Amino acid sequence: MNLASLNTPAAIVDLDAMTRNIQRMQARMNALGVKFRPHVKTTKCNQVVQAQLDAGAQGITVSTLKEAEQFFAAGIGDIVYAVAMAPNKLEQAMTLRRRGCDLKIVTDSVSSARAIVAFGNAHAESFEVWIEVDVDGHRSGIAPDDDLLLDVGRVLHEGGMKLGGVLAHAGSSYDYNTAADLERIAEQERAGCVHAAQRLRAAGLPCDTVSIGSTPTALAARHLEGVTEVRAGVYVFFDLVMHNVGVCALDDIALSVLTTVIGHQENKGWAIVDAGWMAMSRDRGTQRQQQDFGYGLVCTEDGVPVDGYVMSAANQEHGIVSCIGEPDTAIAARFPVGTRLRILPNHACATGAQHPEYHALSRDGAVSTWPRFYGW
Amino acid sequence: MNLASLNTPAAIVDLDAMTRNIQRMQARMNALGVKFRPHVKTTKCNQVVQAQLDAGAQGITVSTLKEAEQFFAAGIGDIVYAVAMAPNKLEQAMTLRRRGCDLKIVTDSVSSARAIVAFGNAHAESFEVWIEVDVDGHRSGIAPDDDLLLDVGRVLHEGGMKLGGVLAHAGSSYDYNTAADLERIAEQERAGCVHAAQRLRAAGLPCDTVSIGSTPTALAARHLEGVTEVRAGVYVFFDLVMHNVGVCALDDIALSVLTTVIGHQENKGWAIVDAGWMAMSRDRGTQRQQQDFGYGLVCTEDGVPVDGYVMSAANQEHGIVSCIGEPDTAIAARFPVGTRLRILPNHACATGAQHPEYHALSRDGAVSTWPRFYGW
Repeated sequence: MNLASLNTPAAIVDLDAMTRNIQRMQARMNALGVKFRPHVKTTKCNQVVQAQLDAGAQGITVSTLKEAEQFFAAGIGDIVYAVAMAPNKLEQAMTLRRRGCDLKIVTDSVSSARAIVAFGNAHAESFEVWIEVDVDGHRSGIAPDDDLLLDVGRVLHEGGMKLGGVLAHAGSSYDYNTAADLERIAEQERAGCVHAAQRLRAAGLPCDTVSIGSTPTALAARHLEGVTEVRAGVYVFFDLVMHNVGVCALDDIALSVLTTVIGHQENKGWAIVDAGWMAMSRDRGTQRQQQDFGYGLVCTEDGVPVDGYVMSAANQEHGIVSCIGEPDTAIAARFPVGTRLRILPNHACATGAQHPEYHALSRDGAVSTWPRFYGW
Repeated sequence: MNLASLNTPAAIVDLDAMTRNIQRMQARMNALGVKFRPHVKTTKCNQVVQAQLDAGAQGITVSTLKEAEQFFAAGIGDIVYAVAMAPNKLEQAMTLRRRGCDLKIVTDSVSSARAIVAFGNAHAESFEVWIEVDVDGHRSGIAPDDDLLLDVGRVLHEGGMKLGGVLAHAGSSYDYNTAADLERIAEQERAGCVHAAQRLRAAGLPCDTVSIGSTPTALAARHLEGVTEVRAGVYVFFDLVMHNVGVCALDDIALSVLTTVIGHQENKGWAIVDAGWMAMSRDRGTQRQQQDFGYGLVCTEDGVPVDGYVMSAANQEHGIVSCIGEPDTAIAARFPVGTRLRILPNHACATGAQHPEYHALSRDGAVSTWPRFYGW
């Protein structure tokens, strides 16, 4: 199988770029002296995760219990479910643990901690729980200086659960685009999470693991003193948002969507392609960044960016490809009907999720099909 | 099975609302004297499409050849693939026709028409082809007065294909929100497509079918003289975009996402839920409308809207629920951890596509699982 034999639209993974991305991150983590635990929500694909583990990653991070179940079935036991635990998911988590999965769960509230303790004690299950720490006001978690941190820690520890550590994610790192800002937010993530761990320990509570991470901060951190492990996900493919943040070059982007030109509106300078938002996702993550790529950057079938051409609009199965600025009224000659293009995505996690499989493209042009799963 | 037994997040279909929506549209089409051909891209679900056919729909519209294959396998033969044909998909279309599927394909260019003729003649296959007409500058198609219409018609007819009709979609109808504007755009869609058909016939070319449609125009048209069939998709579930367009009430929206509260940021007035953009989609279709619902409108588990509360932000598996305006710092008391909510979506086509199945909820509280497919 090769690119020419694929139906369109199709999700293409450039294996060379993916391998470089994996090696780059793992080499940094090795140099910084921490364990690396990739977030598999980006790909939900065994072949990609196996490549991450083969390069030195230890354990995985998941965003759903379905991911935990699928990757445990594939032989991975060390898993952290990095979304605050809902009480109604405790039975599913317990079932995984009793089958031998070393699943860690997360909370950031007394209410949820009490539910974990009550369920755990009722079923004689000592869950390992990490407390989520909020280092940047981005989403969930407890601020490092908030006494709620100690309250939650005590509920878990005194309730007989294993208080395993603290976990933070500096999601606001996506909002920056200079090395200085990224270094600053990386240090804020590190220092905040380490401070939370120190407060727990000073209160006589156990806290072995200090887990932080996002792709930009993992790539920007100068040192990781006090941190035991880093999590990151999108680095494996990168995307246009990460390009705008400044942590990858265009040719590091390993995911693209292969598409076919199906028509034109010549006077408007539009080529219509058979990849719409169903194939790209509705993610417009570059809209508020310094360079807006619409629904994606146009490349030739070989993967070379066509300067100035983006998918400027999308319907469900139609994409509109056009030139930024003046309309290219010769676009039908440039991209005739039947032309195949590849579109680099704004957000690899969102675009990948629209596809039942990746088509992994080797340097020699061979293509392998890698299934990915979805749902909950 | 009932709502309480479902894992979250989950896509819920309110069967009463869906049934009302199907009956309302079919009754209108019957009164207007046209055949109704629902667009199945919204649901990709056999049970929903069967309900549409049972109510009187004749044939279906698809946005991918995979939809054609899946619904042909389910026993539906009369299918129009309403996206301009890519030359590389002709073999797949021919295979379907030779298995007995009455598949119609679409084009809007001489180049694509020539490719269809060349392939058809090389394989002794007389494809039925409809010409796409552009009635509002929205996307694809040939303007009714453009002589390109006759050129494409002649290429197909003289090349031995069956020129079956014309097809238009007034996608710009989504941009309006008054009855007068919707009636005007509906009439523009009707008149433009009928005019294109008349020009083809006046040039001695066959044109039996005149196919138009979008949910807003189908519901706004005063008469459909000259039209033979109407297509619409999202009406079966409706959504917040359609509510803002003014063609449905909130309680007509049949699709929602069931979710669980997993935490809070009380000082910000945030409840965090386990449905993020993976469950809602990234669609922000109400952003530019008169009422912006964020990622969706919050309802109780019973489906009753909680006035003023929306999903204001979303990450992959986290949604932030908050009050529009002043932060509700008592939100943790209002929606404690473990509370289950239902979120009405901006765009039912996009939200449904994120889920492997619908959970169809009857008035008596019973829930059935209806699979849906995805991919190409």
